[in-house]
Formats: sequence, C-alpha cells, structure tokens
Amino acid sequence: MLLEGGLVLVSDSRTNAGVDRIATFRKMSVWEEPGERFIALMTAGNLAVSQAVVTMLREGMPEDGETMAGVPTMTAAARLVGRAVREVDRVDGPALRAHGSEFAASFILGGQIKGRRLRLFNIYAAGNFVEATAETPYFQIGETKYGKPIIDRVVASSTGLVEAAKCALISMDSSMRSNLSVGPPIDLVIYERDALQVGTRKVIEESDPYFNQIRKRWSDGLRMLFATLPDPEWE
Amino acid sequence: MLLEGGLVLVSDSRTNAGVDRIATFRKMSVWEEPGERFIALMTAGNLAVSQAVVTMLREGMPEDGETMAGVPTMTAAARLVGRAVREVDRVDGPALRAHGSEFAASFILGGQIKGRRLRLFNIYAAGNFVEATAETPYFQIGETKYGKPIIDRVVASSTGLVEAAKCALISMDSSMRSNLSVGPPIDLVIYERDALQVGTRKVIEESDPYFNQIRKRWSDGLRMLFATLPDPEWE
Repeated sequence: MLLEGGLVLVSDSRTNAGVDRIATFRKMSVWEEPGERFIALMTAGNLAVSQAVVTMLREGMPEDGETMAGVPTMTAAARLVGRAVREVDRVDGPALRAHGSEFAASFILGGQIKGRRLRLFNIYAAGNFVEATAETPYFQIGETKYGKPIIDRVVASSTGLVEAAKCALISMDSSMRSNLSVGPPIDLVIYERDALQVGTRKVIEESDPYFNQIRKRWSDGLRMLFATLPDPEWE
Repeated sequence: MLLEGGLVLVSDSRTNAGVDRIATFRKMSVWEEPGERFIALMTAGNLAVSQAVVTMLREGMPEDGETMAGVPTMTAAARLVGRAVREVDRVDGPALRAHGSEFAASFILGGQIKGRRLRLFNIYAAGNFVEATAETPYFQIGETKYGKPIIDRVVASSTGLVEAAKCALISMDSSMRSNLSVGPPIDLVIYERDALQVGTRKVIEESDPYFNQIRKRWSDGLRMLFATLPDPEWE
C-alpha cells in the first residue's frame, strides 16, 4: 500500500506444490541502508522462479553485475527486477514449460532512495510493470481475491499507516481462512515516507496475541453486524 | 445452500465476453409442478454452453427425449444435466477448442421430488457431480472467491432460510463490488423443505430498496467495525 504517510507491506510465508508439499518460505526481501535507501521486494508464483530472481538481485546480473543494493532510482530498481525475471525466463523458462509448468511469477517492489520519491510497483512475469498512484494506492499478488474487498472498503491514499497495517492483517486473515495455501508467519513492514529506514518490521506468527485479538474481534464483529441486518419484508 | 429448512438459491445476471461485450442473461432455470416437484438449475461459464444445456433439458435429449420435467429422482436430474453437458461438448466442444475457447460450464442443481429427499448438486463441465452435505452445505460456481468468506463465517446447515438468504445477498454484494462481471438483477429463490413448490421468488434489481438498505448497512457497519479494532502496541 502506497499511502500519504508511507508504505505498508505485508506478505505471507506459505508455498505449496500440491496439498502434501506445503512449506514455509518468507516472501519479502529488504535492501536497507539507513539514511540512504529502503527497498523491499515481495514475490508470488513459482518459488524456484522468485528465489532465482531474488538471488540474481543480490548477487548481480550475469551480464553486468548490477545489484539491487546499487540501483540509483526506484525506476531502475523496477527495471532491474524486470531484467532479472526475463533472464530467469531465458534460462529456466523453456525447461519449465517442457515439464508442463507455467512460468508464473509476480512482484511488488516498494521503496525510496535519498532525494527521490517513494514509489510502489507491480512487476509481471514478462518483466514489465505498473506503478501505484493516489487513485489506486495498493497492489496484491498471489491469492488476491478473498482479501480484496476489505482493502477496497477501507484503504485510500490518505489512510494512516497503522490503520492500513491493521487492514492488511485483516485482509491476510480473510485469505488465510479461505485458502490453505496462504499461511503464517506474516511479514509486515511499515515505512514512513522520507525516513530512509524501516519504521516497523514484525514477523507475526500464528500465535501472535495482537493478530489473534483483531482476528477474533473481526470475526465476532462480522457475525454480530450480520445479525443486526434487517430481515426482508417478502411475503 | 442446502439447509435444514430448505434451499436458498441465488444467481446474478451478468455475462461478458470482454469488457465491451457485457450483457444481462438470467442464470437460473426452474421446473416446478406444485405438490409434485421443484427443481432449479443455476449455470456459470460459457453462456453458449449453458444455454445449449438448458435448452436440451427443456426440449429433451436427442437420444431418448428425456427432459428435466420428467425425471423420477434428483439423482436422475443430476445425471441428466451431466448427459446434456457431455452431449453439448460432443457437438460443440471440438469447434470451441479449435477457436481457442475453453469448454467451461458448471451447474448447481437443487430440488425435491415428492416422497424423496431435498438435494443439492454441483455438476462439472465433465458431467460428473458432487452433492452438498450437512458439513458442506453450500456450493458456489462462477466468480466464487470474493463472496466466499462471509458465507464461511455465517452459514451452517442449521442457519434459517431468511438468514441464509440475507447472507447470500451480502455475498453477492461483495462479488459485485469487486468484479464487474457480476451484476444485477439477482434471482433469489427460497424453497422450504417438503413444500414441493417455490416459497419466495424475487428478482432483485439494482434499485431494490431492501437490497440497498442491507448493502449500505453492511458497508457502513464494516467500516465502523474496522474502526473499533484496537491499534497494535508496536513501538
């Protein structure tokens, strides 16, 4: 979420290759140099693809050694992710497709570099990307649908960072309840605009007291709210 | 929804073939002979496929003339839908696939025939089907995800018919808000177990006062509920 106050970034940690191959992998990578830059990348899709991309961003592009830690601007960062995903596609894509797998990968990239604007991008498997704006201040990747309605109802560009983080957790809760392939721990990062370093970074486990408190209040509250809706006057 | 009290059936009326080919087609067909039988079929997927299936069920199977109006049991009704969808696939499937379209169709069939049990089936494009039970008392087809969380939270086999109908409308509202391909009018049927005739049948237009009242109260209530969630105590 790209808000007036900054960024709220949330990712789950579950991957699956069928219901008997469920594992926990974190999906958020952060490059931070306090006072200079903060960049975070979240991934969805084929884990082998997204890990290969992240590794390439850390170790450097085969062609010229460019790394995420060294990009001069956020646009350059988005282009670098695009280049990396195309490079992984070039190397691994044909074999993946020959084995009947899709080359599925998507990325959310957010951050700020000193002296420049805070930005948020959604990068596709083809390596191209779109940018969040005040009118459409958030992106989702992966299992997006169950958790979308509450974000649409609550979040605008002017929403406060803590409010938005709460909404992101409730949204993740809806996805987790409806889809077994979404699961904890949840990585949460709050970045205050122009801070040039992480504000809050939390790893929220399934047993987290605050997360469980708002999950329960939300769930109970929804049922109570539903119970207050008037009955129809049909015959 | 298959409930202790009976059935609640809801369908929207929007079809699209791209955003510039949006049209209104009702997706619920009812066969009723008061005191003898009540059968309703809802459809999703390729409109040409689902219309061909419904036409065949009304006019009779090419092979033996069997119609939905004449089936002896609900299992026979579900098998007949399966036969019809396979026949449409046999005739139209190869040409559809040759034009790069999928043979996409799914069906929810519910009803009761005198002296027999009330039943609810989900029938797939392959013509096979599953049946709802007390543990899993509802099916969704088409755009299912946005509207699923509220049903999971509210509906059990013991839920009353009016309560379940309200939930179905709120679920449909969530889908309509999040996906332009879901739209009014909404067909709603409530069938009381063993009544052998429709209890309530409503066509709910976008301007329907009751629907708008509960949509608005739900929307306002969700935002109020969200606002009451406690803030985290992260530094």
